Amino acid sequence: MHFDIAPLDAELGRALQHKLDRKTKPLGSLGMLETVAQKVGQIQQRMDPAIAFPAMLIFAADHGLARAGVSPYPSEVTAQMVQNFLAGGAAISVLCRAHGMSLRIINAGVNASFAPHALLIDCPLARGTANSLEGPAMSLGQVYIAIETGAAVLGERAQLGATLVGLGEMGIGNTSAAALLMARLTGEPIERCAGRGTGLDDAGLARKVTILQQVLDKHAGVTEPLDVLAAMGGFEIAMMVGAYLAAAARRVVILVDGFIASAALLVASRINPAVLDYCVFSHCSDEAGHALLLQHLGAQPLLRLDLRLGEGSGAALALPLVQAACKLLNEMASFDEAGVSDSDGNDAGGKAGGA
Amino acid sequence: MHFDIAPLDAELGRALQHKLDRKTKPLGSLGMLETVAQKVGQIQQRMDPAIAFPAMLIFAADHGLARAGVSPYPSEVTAQMVQNFLAGGAAISVLCRAHGMSLRIINAGVNASFAPHALLIDCPLARGTANSLEGPAMSLGQVYIAIETGAAVLGERAQLGATLVGLGEMGIGNTSAAALLMARLTGEPIERCAGRGTGLDDAGLARKVTILQQVLDKHAGVTEPLDVLAAMGGFEIAMMVGAYLAAAARRVVILVDGFIASAALLVASRINPAVLDYCVFSHCSDEAGHALLLQHLGAQPLLRLDLRLGEGSGAALALPLVQAACKLLNEMASFDEAGVSDSDGNDAGGKAGGA
Repeated sequence: MHFDIAPLDAELGRALQHKLDRKTKPLGSLGMLETVAQKVGQIQQRMDPAIAFPAMLIFAADHGLARAGVSPYPSEVTAQMVQNFLAGGAAISVLCRAHGMSLRIINAGVNASFAPHALLIDCPLARGTANSLEGPAMSLGQVYIAIETGAAVLGERAQLGATLVGLGEMGIGNTSAAALLMARLTGEPIERCAGRGTGLDDAGLARKVTILQQVLDKHAGVTEPLDVLAAMGGFEIAMMVGAYLAAAARRVVILVDGFIASAALLVASRINPAVLDYCVFSHCSDEAGHALLLQHLGAQPLLRLDLRLGEGSGAALALPLVQAACKLLNEMASFDEAGVSDSDGNDAGGKAGGA
Repeated sequence: MHFDIAPLDAELGRALQHKLDRKTKPLGSLGMLETVAQKVGQIQQRMDPAIAFPAMLIFAADHGLARAGVSPYPSEVTAQMVQNFLAGGAAISVLCRAHGMSLRIINAGVNASFAPHALLIDCPLARGTANSLEGPAMSLGQVYIAIETGAAVLGERAQLGATLVGLGEMGIGNTSAAALLMARLTGEPIERCAGRGTGLDDAGLARKVTILQQVLDKHAGVTEPLDVLAAMGGFEIAMMVGAYLAAAARRVVILVDGFIASAALLVASRINPAVLDYCVFSHCSDEAGHALLLQHLGAQPLLRLDLRLGEGSGAALALPLVQAACKLLNEMASFDEAGVSDSDGNDAGGKAGGA
């Protein structure tokens, strides 16, 4: 299990910024979109990057820890929402249609069986993880298989031409798994990592924090990324780790979604930090730990819309910004082309715009 | 000059929120998009709002005050950028193509003449305003004509079927005019309103603030919105005021752009505060006074991308979020339709999602 991820070309980054600086606009006035355009160009190794065939992959699995009462929803909702994704009625279904993203749902380990469906990739490792309060959620062998499966799913998308991928998830109990991974890998206290998930009240949140601390105590001394993932993660999270690493290795732009997606990325970045070079962070969610987790990842998210839905919805919502950034880089006229004067009054110099 | 703007229907707003609450997602988990969907539904008086024929209008004009040296760019850039808009090479040209917005450029008072062009609405009031350091920028008569012209331009778009409009601007010197309007109408000191515009350095900004204070002193005692607009505004800003009021009167959704667009909206809101009900605020720009101005307008902007370009670029970038909000409201399955359980374990109850 080795992923060969190349660092981005800094010289190409400077060339891309120079191209942006010659466009008919004040220097730097496209803000974060300039950073995005530059990064996509570096990932694709092109001066004219473009997003062809954007793909959304949603990894779904159930969690043994859900039996401890960390969510207001029963585990059955995981399978019900998978059916909703397949039927086209979920938020991410709507957003993928709206923004031209191909959508596939990966059954990574849901506690249900599914009829064959064109959008379903059915490769479960089990019918949910074990309860991490009682022992490891997964075996290390399961973690390896999950990572390789996630990588294979990503590889298939890349072979079909995907140049950008959003990774989403569904799994009742998975904000708990994500908070546990974050707490152990960053050293932050669990109170700063755990949030209300789908809508716990104050008492529910306090109970969740108590249970999660018990899980952390149960697995005290487990600190290596893959061991932490096995002890307290989930099948969908482990597959996402593999998909992230494979995407970076294949120079596919990664559009990072919310809290759980970011926790999976944290694990991936502890396996190979270069994966972060290939990430555009779509949003900061309303889930309590996400802003802090993004800080640990050194991320500047594009959107802050108080979303707390998961499913890859934030990534799908940010896609038009990434596409716009590329089109601005490619299609805007330069000062020379447009004959616009710069700030020194030269005929085709520095910058322009409503001042 | 009267604009009959109806207040939004609060009961319809509650019905729309109820519809959102029955969708297969945790309550409120679409964050600001739920507010947007509700508002668009109220504006269109529909339970299934949709954005047909989104239109972008860019108002351009020159400013006599620019001769005082408040911008690093010469006034010639205004006309050059109009040509760039018409040729399709500006940022807003690219974004309108990317997002399917119709684009029209309105010559409100540029110091140049233009050949006829399909995208140009050529109705200048003069070749730039007078210098507000020396006297009123415009006569009150010019302000009335500008407002009525802006309203007529908007009316034509609405008659052609536009249900959403973004109002952009171009005019060297117009961050100064906007800062002056903001300072006089909100009472904020000019230091908190004026920013670097297209890229003034510290010395340039200090000089701009000194000049703008002189303009405010010159027009001490002028406090009525239309008088303030005449004294210190611009032709493009006055036309935008009319376009805002006409859009609200015709129930067209207004996508508010950056600092100058927000200053024009401030004037419009002092003429008729109900205009604000019809506004979705696209972004908070990097221009110093914008965040504070948005506070005065009670606005929650969708994007914070450190843009400082004007041209309606922030509005065009936010359009997909508004469209997505409407589609989520219309296309997502409800709990009953999808057979998803709620947090009490009922078969079709409260909420769902990755927890």
